[in-house]
Amino acid sequence: MQKILDIDITIIGLGLIGGSYAMAFKEINSGHIWGVDTNENTLKKAANMKIIDEGYGDFSAHIPIKKSDLVIIAVYPQAAVKIIKNNVKNFKKGAIITDVLGIKGNNIDVIQEILGEHNAEFIGGHPMAGKESSGLEYASKDIFNGANYVLTPTKKNKKHTVDYMEDLIRKIGFKNISIVTPEKHDELIAVTSQLPHAIALSLMNSKGVDKSIKNFIGGSFKDESRVAKINPELWCELFMSNKKFLLKAICDFQESIADIKAAVESEDCERLKTIMKNASLKKGELN
Amino acid sequence: MQKILDIDITIIGLGLIGGSYAMAFKEINSGHIWGVDTNENTLKKAANMKIIDEGYGDFSAHIPIKKSDLVIIAVYPQAAVKIIKNNVKNFKKGAIITDVLGIKGNNIDVIQEILGEHNAEFIGGHPMAGKESSGLEYASKDIFNGANYVLTPTKKNKKHTVDYMEDLIRKIGFKNISIVTPEKHDELIAVTSQLPHAIALSLMNSKGVDKSIKNFIGGSFKDESRVAKINPELWCELFMSNKKFLLKAICDFQESIADIKAAVESEDCERLKTIMKNASLKKGELN
Repeated sequence: MQKILDIDITIIGLGLIGGSYAMAFKEINSGHIWGVDTNENTLKKAANMKIIDEGYGDFSAHIPIKKSDLVIIAVYPQAAVKIIKNNVKNFKKGAIITDVLGIKGNNIDVIQEILGEHNAEFIGGHPMAGKESSGLEYASKDIFNGANYVLTPTKKNKKHTVDYMEDLIRKIGFKNISIVTPEKHDELIAVTSQLPHAIALSLMNSKGVDKSIKNFIGGSFKDESRVAKINPELWCELFMSNKKFLLKAICDFQESIADIKAAVESEDCERLKTIMKNASLKKGELN
Repeated sequence: MQKILDIDITIIGLGLIGGSYAMAFKEINSGHIWGVDTNENTLKKAANMKIIDEGYGDFSAHIPIKKSDLVIIAVYPQAAVKIIKNNVKNFKKGAIITDVLGIKGNNIDVIQEILGEHNAEFIGGHPMAGKESSGLEYASKDIFNGANYVLTPTKKNKKHTVDYMEDLIRKIGFKNISIVTPEKHDELIAVTSQLPHAIALSLMNSKGVDKSIKNFIGGSFKDESRVAKINPELWCELFMSNKKFLLKAICDFQESIADIKAAVESEDCERLKTIMKNASLKKGELN
């Protein structure tokens, strides 16, 4: 593929998402791509895969950061804040820092506060791509192809930075790029990502769901339980940091399934068919 | 592909499932495959696709039925009973009749009662394969490949018939074939198929789910809402005829999602992580 980009990039955290970024940028970027990870084996693996030029441990993160035009932070919320804090004076003048977190909460305010009037600019980002398995071994640039991406600038971000990021993200395969406030992002994501995860977990934990049903599973159950294979540490942090919106989404869903239950209970076919038609129609609109 | 079967087959109802059966048998069977459908265009289409040798309208169903070793009834529950009633004296001596219905209820008893001591033997079957779209144009023999199949014999079925069906079903690509009573089938299917459909409908009908979320949808929402594109006539009949087991499955699921809500509400991380670990573990076991 043609190298249409020439910047130096540091990716912090070479898991599924960080690793996929490394792959995607390696293909289009002629500049350096450095990786930072706490796990030495992961760094070796990434180097062997030739998706990074060099790997650095946590404590030497400043070495590539000092030279990078773009720093992508692909670690857990609390770790992300810590890295910025530790490197606040190390970012290159004019560098852009972004994250990949599924929930923004007040993290962006905290980070922008830490950075203050320093050289670098932080802009929140959320690649809506993933897999039910975590870790570098599952990374693939293909997960970004045609996927949705959300940019969450604040008043502190320059318009030029937002435009630059939008262009960059499009270059590695994302299709629909939305620009909303961090709070609006969290409200929407509670419905489109956290609620489906809560549903998948609830389905798997339902009474009656055990090995005995294995050979009776069709596509609907398989699809709906897919994301139940979850990373509890990460998702607990994500759920808790979006408590307000997630609880609202769960309540709305509970009302909705109670409607179906009531229609079945009272054998109200007309009501049930209307529910089915509405859902079907809405699904069609969202495709 | 080698023709490893030589029987004459009538398929009643050339929709998604009936059409897929026609395709699958056409590939391995050197005998005739006839199609019966109320829609003349569907019959023409199936003939053009060369997946049936000849098509018959509803009123001439007796013509192919009289000559068929196997009759597959792939229409709605009430229509299935009617067809058997109308053709009770037309079935060939020793013929096997089977259906494809997702819910068995007391249909099988009713049908076996109608057939009485006549020539043909009815055995219930449920191919756990499908698509979110219905109709012949979506039919594909591939949907059977590796899918689950449930046979629901009663005391009235001969062991030889059960074995014969099991072998036949395996020949067209199904993998795990389970043999259970019609009642056990309905109990399990409430959990593995009807509940996931009720969930998908509820997700789509949740407040907050509308066009505005379109660009914020990731894989989890897409997968979990897939089957919300539903056939209301069929699924209303399926839901209502399995009322008891479906309501139980919904109740169990409601308890399960209430657990998650309570853990988030009280910010009980340990509880939430345990819920996530359990779900993840169970998902692993069912894969």
